[in-house]
Amino acid sequence: MKTKSFSDMQCSIARSLELVGSWWSLLIIRDAMMGARRFKHFQKSLGIAKNTLTSRLIQLIDSDILERVPAKDGSAYDEYQLTPKGRDLGPIILALSQWGDKWAVHPDGPSFEYFDRKTGEDLTAIWPRRANGEAMELRDVGVKPAGTSTPQPESGIERTSS
Amino acid sequence: MKTKSFSDMQCSIARSLELVGSWWSLLIIRDAMMGARRFKHFQKSLGIAKNTLTSRLIQLIDSDILERVPAKDGSAYDEYQLTPKGRDLGPIILALSQWGDKWAVHPDGPSFEYFDRKTGEDLTAIWPRRANGEAMELRDVGVKPAGTSTPQPESGIERTSS
Repeated sequence: MKTKSFSDMQCSIARSLELVGSWWSLLIIRDAMMGARRFKHFQKSLGIAKNTLTSRLIQLIDSDILERVPAKDGSAYDEYQLTPKGRDLGPIILALSQWGDKWAVHPDGPSFEYFDRKTGEDLTAIWPRRANGEAMELRDVGVKPAGTSTPQPESGIERTSS
Repeated sequence: MKTKSFSDMQCSIARSLELVGSWWSLLIIRDAMMGARRFKHFQKSLGIAKNTLTSRLIQLIDSDILERVPAKDGSAYDEYQLTPKGRDLGPIILALSQWGDKWAVHPDGPSFEYFDRKTGEDLTAIWPRRANGEAMELRDVGVKPAGTSTPQPESGIERTSS
């Protein structure tokens, strides 16, 4: 899947990808966030070979993204649940879903919608915002080497759109 | 890298991953957002084989995420820039960076920081928020099949933490 390891890279994006492991792993995390807890849940959802799923689950446990826990109902089956580190992947999953809904939507439409469980309202966009909650233009998102105070000239998330 | 295509899946997350293509592609998109425009920029940043980079760039152009444009300085070299579809991947890149800074940071610390070009302030977290800008608890993010009004019992992005 990768031709070299990203783990030696300093970039947090590369390091995140290294820890997550693969596309399949992201779909396993998606399913876990949707409530899947058992091997059979993940296999039914993903339709992949058992040995592939097993290796992905092991890798996610090794990365401390999933943890194996006793079955809630006391049955003999182990269950898998997200760790706090894994749950923190939520914004990434939501951002992927949001982008796909806009740019890669299935002819039958999106399969899921997200909402605010407290208000019932649809979720607002996952988007960079100012401290006051105002959504930012991507071009206003600047990038600078860590620990410096002087931004790189013209650097920014939308630099290439100029 | 993937053992089957996600393109027949209805899930927008899977469809996004299919279009983006690979981990390497996400790092190419990252570099484009940081200002890389030419083949040599991407190759220097990623340190991958030319044929690998070439195939990734072609795939991103085919997916309408990157576009090939004449060099800004009028030289003979083509340049690559993000399309609107590609720039919309910004929140995903930022969310990956944010997660990596928290959970996978390099011993030397993060390589980049993001800031608000208008205020100079550090970027606030990429996180689900209410219409009023208030950051939500992940457990308050509910999931329901598209087009339905009744949420699935206990469904939600943090369902598995219960």
